[in-house]
Parts: sequence; structure tokens; C-alpha cells
Amino acid sequence: MNPVFKATEVIGAGLIGTSIALKLVKNGGFVRLIDPNTHHQKVANQLMGAALLDGEGQPECVIVATPVDVSAMVIIEALRLYPNAIVIDIGSVKTKVLHEVWTKGEKNSDLLRRYLPTHPMAGREFSGPEGAQSDLFESRPWAITPHPENSAEIRELGARFITEMGAIPQSLTPEEHDQQVAMTSHAPQILASALAGSLSGELALSGQGLRDMTRLAHSDPDVWISILSANAAALGPHLQRIVKSINLLIDNNFDQQSVLEFMERGRSGVQRIPGKHGGIPRNYSSLNVVIPDRAGQLAALFNHCADVKINIEDLRIEHSPGQETGLITLYVQTGDLSTLEDHLSTLGWQCTEGKKII
Amino acid sequence: MNPVFKATEVIGAGLIGTSIALKLVKNGGFVRLIDPNTHHQKVANQLMGAALLDGEGQPECVIVATPVDVSAMVIIEALRLYPNAIVIDIGSVKTKVLHEVWTKGEKNSDLLRRYLPTHPMAGREFSGPEGAQSDLFESRPWAITPHPENSAEIRELGARFITEMGAIPQSLTPEEHDQQVAMTSHAPQILASALAGSLSGELALSGQGLRDMTRLAHSDPDVWISILSANAAALGPHLQRIVKSINLLIDNNFDQQSVLEFMERGRSGVQRIPGKHGGIPRNYSSLNVVIPDRAGQLAALFNHCADVKINIEDLRIEHSPGQETGLITLYVQTGDLSTLEDHLSTLGWQCTEGKKII
Repeated sequence: MNPVFKATEVIGAGLIGTSIALKLVKNGGFVRLIDPNTHHQKVANQLMGAALLDGEGQPECVIVATPVDVSAMVIIEALRLYPNAIVIDIGSVKTKVLHEVWTKGEKNSDLLRRYLPTHPMAGREFSGPEGAQSDLFESRPWAITPHPENSAEIRELGARFITEMGAIPQSLTPEEHDQQVAMTSHAPQILASALAGSLSGELALSGQGLRDMTRLAHSDPDVWISILSANAAALGPHLQRIVKSINLLIDNNFDQQSVLEFMERGRSGVQRIPGKHGGIPRNYSSLNVVIPDRAGQLAALFNHCADVKINIEDLRIEHSPGQETGLITLYVQTGDLSTLEDHLSTLGWQCTEGKKII
Repeated sequence: MNPVFKATEVIGAGLIGTSIALKLVKNGGFVRLIDPNTHHQKVANQLMGAALLDGEGQPECVIVATPVDVSAMVIIEALRLYPNAIVIDIGSVKTKVLHEVWTKGEKNSDLLRRYLPTHPMAGREFSGPEGAQSDLFESRPWAITPHPENSAEIRELGARFITEMGAIPQSLTPEEHDQQVAMTSHAPQILASALAGSLSGELALSGQGLRDMTRLAHSDPDVWISILSANAAALGPHLQRIVKSINLLIDNNFDQQSVLEFMERGRSGVQRIPGKHGGIPRNYSSLNVVIPDRAGQLAALFNHCADVKINIEDLRIEHSPGQETGLITLYVQTGDLSTLEDHLSTLGWQCTEGKKII
């Protein structure tokens, strides 16, 4: 593959910066990956190996992958230092950084023209270069939030870079972006941490729902401190709406009408979330299968699914405290359900239809 | 198997009542399953078949599996109608129903002695008899919340019944139970519905975190209306603590110290959740593997895992909008990780270590 940029400087060797660097190298580019954290810098240098862009090399592109509270400063420096490079910011919050670049930087439209704000939607539960992987962005949405000084050429170059990363470019305004991530990423993080933080005592009765609802609470606070603060303007009002809906339930003492309206709003909202393959979520049918807790059982099960050439669209394993066996839920196209159920039952698997839901 | 009770009446042919009936029949018992909903009653009769306890038969046990707002009344009636039967309530909320039985029923301690409050921890995303399965309780915790009139003999009988259902008896006071389910089941449901209900517009940037955090929002409001209202006393104050922690963040404009304390509290709380096999959660290691989106790939992958005799402790599939391939995360014992990674890489799977987290 002919890389969009032969030489790239990546500033910030965290999960995202390092993953971008790995993908660039894989695609045949030369990369200088720098980080003020000496541990990160060391890991980064080991990863770059022979593809290291030397200290004097002029990058065609600079990727700013720093925490969002310092990214405006880094962006302005990069624009001044490399007068021919495109500077691509990949931070999680867009409006505030754009505003800072605009107000702190010179009002030099040639400089600003080369600054393209973007944001890849990739995992945030992990952090640091050790978790980096070249395929982190594979088929993920990657927002481009251009500003008026960006030429069509710069936007096009950014989209080509994003495609090269394996991701799917999505154009939004910076304001739309910040509203969307407040809803789809920042509020879920807050609710997961709030729920986990409210737990106390022995939890003998906890189930899968609680585990799903608190998984994000493992996230690294260092990653989130600058993000949440930078997006306070969009996040605060959104959380207030959520809090208000909960307070209304409490104030009405969970009366029938309030609970019904509240839960119906939730059922309608969850339909907005795109499913696999994007667009409108599909309704799959599900089959619950009991699996003994020993090596090889999953292999046996999926072999039997493959016998009848049925594609498993999604799956979930459920475990509970003290459980020796597991319950796996297979999601398949509705038309495939009875074939699969008949086949597995015949072969001795204990299985039951679930609901059409995902 | 010799069933604990030869003849049982199950009142309420919803998901839980019907699943209990199915398991009783499977274990060789005779069952009368009754429901005021004619559709449920019809499904129930079909399911019972030859194991139907006829209308005149005296049950040794009555299972009350009605919505919690009517269960006290049903319990009292059953205690009076069948003077030799144990009456086992399986509702999701304990204190309020116990109080109602106590105040509305006669203060006849022989009557009350035979009433045993319990609660199986089983899935609540689905409802109705169609979703019932005899193994619904397999290895799940099942709370027994006895009251002072219960004799040791009645408690013992209840524990034997629960074990026969495949579940694991857990003794708690009714108050402990209601506090725990407020924390581990009712609050997660509220937060999932609140988050889903807050969604609006096009959600081009949503990822797996949002999907995990809103899965419970699919739940049936009819099931939850009586539960939430009956547990208002425990749930209200718990939700207020959660809301307070979120309001504090908003009021402090997401400043560094507030976010840090808030998220650290979440990280510490999530450690309290029991993992697979109960007790202290294990730390598994994870391996991310890219899987092409076509039939047979999962079978191939699990065959390759079975080659090296490694037990997959848990797994997750991640899909994003527009994604053609999937990313599967396999959780294994930390000591097994490098063996599995080496083996899969050699066979051409694209895989990368994740973090030690679950």
C-alpha cells in the first residue's frame, strides 16, 4: 500500500497515538512517536523499530494525540514548526480545543487551514501504549469536524488518512460531535462510575446486568479528567436531564404512571442506537444454550452451528456467582433460528429460544 | 430424582412461575399452574401436559409467582385454602410483602409459620411464559429471607426446594435483601432506562459502551412497575446517593479533583462485584481476535482454542456501526494467555493482548 503520508510525527504515545503509529508503520510509513513520559517514549521507540523517522526528518503530517487540556498548545506549535505539514488532532472533545487554537494562535489563516480536528471512536477502558494495536480503528467510526478555514483538499486528505487507518470517516460539526459524545460516551462513563461507586457491603445477589452496567467503571481516571472537564458545556446539561428524569421517579414515589412513562422513553431511546453493520438495528432471534464449564465445549458448540452453515451474529456468555456451567446466548437471523435449535437439540445441547431482542 | 414436593400449585404463569413449573415437572412432580391471564393460562396448560395436577388435588406446596403488588393477598388465601401446604413467595421485593401479610392476614402463627419468602435471581429482560426454561435457575443465587415465625423445618424444606430447582440458597434478612436488590438490580435498571431515554438525534458515533449500558432498557415496564414501587423505601435513598454524586461533579464543573475522586470510588466499588464461581472476582487476561463476518469462523477459532486445551472463561463480541468484521475478546486464566496467543497467531489469526480485566 502507498501510504497517504510517507513521514508522520505522532505526539503522545498513549493507546490511540501508539495504535495510529503502529498502523502507519504497518502501511509502510516512517514515524516519529514522541511523549514526555519517559516510559511511554521507551515503549514507543521499541515499537517503531526500523520505521523510525529520525530527529531531523520533516513530517508531512503531525498527529496530536495528547490529553485534550494541552492539545491546543501542541497543535499551534506543530503548525508553526512544520509549515508544510497537515496537523491532525484526534482528541475526544472538539469545540473547546478549536476555540483555544483560534484564540491563542495567530489569526493566520494559512496556519489554521492546515489544522484538521478529528476523533476516532475507539475503546477507552484501557490506556497506555501497552494496549495499542494496529487494528484498533478497524471499521470504527472516526469523526472529522472541520472548521471554516479547512480547504476541501485538507478535508479530503484527512478522510484518506482515516480510511488508511481502517476506519470510516464521519463528518460532523464540532458542536454536533461534542453533543453526541456527551450522550454516547461521556454520560455512560459517568453513570457506570456512579453506579459502581454506590455499591457497598456483600453483593451475594448480583447478576449480569450489574456487571454490564459497571464495566466502564474500570476506566483510567487520568484519561477522563481532561475529557470530562473539556466537554463540561455539553455534558453538564445532558447529565442534568438524566438526573431530572430519575428525580421525577423518586419524587413520584415510583408510581405506576411515572415508571411506565420513564421506561417507555428508555425503550424508545434504545432503538436509536445503531447495531452491527450500522444503520437501523436488526432484530435478531436468540437461542440460550447451556454449556458445561470445561475446555472444548465452545468449540463443539460452534462446530455444530457451522454444520448447518448458520452465521452467529452476536453472542453473550452469562455467569453467576457459584455457577459451574455457563449459559450462552446466540443471536442469529430470525429465519435461521428453528434450523439451529432443531440441530443443536438433536445433538444433545440443552437449548431454549430467547426473545427477539438485541 | 425424588421430588421434594409431589404436588405443587404455581400461581402466576410468567417467566419465573412457568420456569419453576417446568423444572418441577422435569423432576417428576405434578403441577397446577394457574394465571388470570387466559393467554398465559393456555400456554401453561400446554406446557404441563400429562403432569397436570387436577383441580381437586391438594398441593403440598404453593408457589406465589404473581406481581408483587398482589402477592400478599394471594399468599394469605393460599395459606387458608391449603392448611397443610408450605407457601413459597418468589417475588422481587420482600419487606413490603412480608409487612402486608403480617398486617392484612390473621395473626395466626400456625398460618404464618408456613409462609416462606424467597427470591430467585434470574433474568428480568424477558417476561411471559414463552421465555420460560426449566434451567432458568441453574447455579443462580436464590435468596431465602425467613421471618421469625418460620420454623427450622420450613427453612430447611425451602432450601431443599431451591436446590432441586438447580439454584443456590442464600440466607438474608428481608431488609438486607431489599437493600441489595436496590443496589444490584433496581438501580442498574433505572440508570439503563434513564440513559437510553436521554438519547436523541442521529447517533453515528456510538460504541459498545453505550450498548452495554442500555441493554436493560429493553425490559418490560409491566414487570418493573410493581417491583420499583414496592421497593421505593430502599431504592429511593439509594438513587438519591447516586444522583448526589453526579450533581457534585456538575456543580464542580468536572474539575480534576472531583472527577478523580468520583472515578476512584467507581473503580473501588466495581471490585465488590462477585465474578464467575462466586467469591472474589478473578483477574483473567484477555486476547482480542479479529474474526471475519461469515459462517464457521467462530467454530474455527474455538477449535483452535481447544487444540491447546485452554478453557475460555468468558468472551465478548464487539460490533460497531458499518463494521464488516467483528472483534472478539477471549478471557482466559493469565497463565494460559501466551500459549493461546502463540498458537492462534501461528495459525494466522490476527490477535493482540488486552488488559487483565473483567
